[in-house]
Amino acid sequence: MEVVEMLSGTIKSGDWKGEKHVPVIEYEKDGDLVKVEVSVGKEIPHPNTPEHHIAWIELWFHPEEENFPVLVGRAEFSNHSDPLTEPRAVFFFKTQKKGKLYALSYCNIHGLWENEVQLE
Amino acid sequence: MEVVEMLSGTIKSGDWKGEKHVPVIEYEKDGDLVKVEVSVGKEIPHPNTPEHHIAWIELWFHPEEENFPVLVGRAEFSNHSDPLTEPRAVFFFKTQKKGKLYALSYCNIHGLWENEVQLE
Amino acid sequence: MEVVEMLSGTIKSGDWKGEKHVPVIEYEKDGDLVKVEVSVGKEIPHPNTPEHHIAWIELWFHPEEENFPVLVGRAEFSNHSDPLTEPRAVFFFKTQKKGKLYALSYCNIHGLWENEVQLE
Amino acid sequence: MEVVEMLSGTIKSGDWKGEKHVPVIEYEKDGDLVKVEVSVGKEIPHPNTPEHHIAWIELWFHPEEENFPVLVGRAEFSNHSDPLTEPRAVFFFKTQKKGKLYALSYCNIHGLWENEVQLE
Repeated sequence: MEVVEMLSGTIKSGDWKGEKHVPVIEYEKDGDLVKVEVSVGKEIPHPNTPEHHIAWIELWFHPEEENFPVLVGRAEFSNHSDPLTEPRAVFFFKTQKKGKLYALSYCNIHGLWENEVQLE
Repeated sequence: MEVVEMLSGTIKSGDWKGEKHVPVIEYEKDGDLVKVEVSVGKEIPHPNTPEHHIAWIELWFHPEEENFPVLVGRAEFSNHSDPLTEPRAVFFFKTQKKGKLYALSYCNIHGLWENEVQLE
Repeated sequence: MEVVEMLSGTIKSGDWKGEKHVPVIEYEKDGDLVKVEVSVGKEIPHPNTPEHHIAWIELWFHPEEENFPVLVGRAEFSNHSDPLTEPRAVFFFKTQKKGKLYALSYCNIHGLWENEVQLE
Repeated sequence: MEVVEMLSGTIKSGDWKGEKHVPVIEYEKDGDLVKVEVSVGKEIPHPNTPEHHIAWIELWFHPEEENFPVLVGRAEFSNHSDPLTEPRAVFFFKTQKKGKLYALSYCNIHGLWENEVQLE
C-alpha cells in the first residue's frame, strides 16, 4: 500500500474557493469539441513571482471503463515580472467518450494539487 | 553569419491561410490583461495523428527596446485517437509594455514554424 | 477517499525487470552533487514509435520530513523514426537532504508508471 | 528579411568558455547509439536561483540534406533552493545519419542561447 500512501500524501486537493492552489476546471461542449479552461487562483489569487509561482498545469481525461487516463495537454508558465503570465490556460479536444477530467497544478513551493469534474 | 543562415533555414513562416503549419495569433486586451489564442490549422486543418501532429506551441513576447524575448507559455498536446487534442491553446498574461508576440509551433515531421503580430 | 482511489488506480508500478513500463532509477553521489539516470525498458525494451512511445519522464525528490515533493526535472522525448530518442535521461542536482527519489514515466497508450528509491 | 533579423537578434551564441549562457554539447557514440550531454555554465557557473536560472535546454538534430531539424529531447529544470537542479542533462538516441546537433538554452532573464556541433 506504500504507493497509495505516497500519492495520497503528496497530491493535495481541496475546495478552490478557499484554497488558492486548487485548480478550477470549467468546460463547455460544442458538438464533439470540448473546450476546457483550467485556472489557479480564480477566487483567491496565487502569488505569481519567480520565488513562488504555479509552474505548470496539466489536463487529463480518464474515459469511463478504460484503464488509463490520457494527458490532453500541459501548459507551462513563465515567471517574469513583465510580462507576468497568469496560471490559466485553455485546451481544446475532441472525444466521443464520457469520463472524468482531472487537472493537476504544480506550485514550486507547495507541490502538486488536483481537482476533477465529470465530463458528460 | 552561419547562425543566421541556420535559423532562417530551419524556422519556416508563411501565410497561415495557405500553409497549414503556420501558427495563427489572435489577441484581445482587457485592461492590462492580454488573452492570446494560438492555433495551427485554422483555415486548412493540420493532420492530427500520432504519425503526424503538432506536438507543441510556444508564445513569446519581445517588448520594444528590450534585448530578450520572454517565453510567455508553452502548451504541449497529446497525440491520441480519442481524446484527440486540437493544436490550439489560450494563454493569459499581464504587461504594461508594447512589443511583438511570436508564436512557434512544432510539427513532428515538418519542424518549426513561426508567426508574429504587433501587441499594441 | 475518492482521490486516493483514483490515483492508486491510474498510476501503476511493478518490477521493472518484468514490466517494461516501470522506470528504473539509478543514482550516484559525488559530494553534494547527485547524478540520477532514469530509463524505461532497461531489461525489456519498450516500443519506441510514434504510435506507442514513452513521451516523457519526470524525476521528483521528496525530502524526509517535508510536506511537498519537488520536481527535479522533466525530460521529453521526440518520437521520430530517425533519430529515434531512447526513453532515458540523466539529471544532476545538489542537495543536503535525504529522502525519496520518485520517477514517473508516461506511455501514450498505457498511461503513468512510477518507481522510487531511497536517496541516502 | 524580417524573420531572419528577428531570429538573429534574439537567439544569441558565443564562446562557452567566456560566456556563461552558451550551452556546451558533448557527445560520444556507441554503435548507432549517440549519448549527448548538454550543459550550461561548464566553465563559468550560471546563477541558478529562482530569480535567475536556466529553465530548460533542448537538443535538436538536423540531418544532412534534410529540410527539417528534429527535436531529440527537452529537459526542464526546477528552480528550488534544495534540491537545486543543475542546468545539465544527458539524452540518448539512435541514428544512421550524420548532421548537426544544436542545443538551445533558455535563461529566464537573458533569453535564448544556442550552440552547435557536427555529428560524424
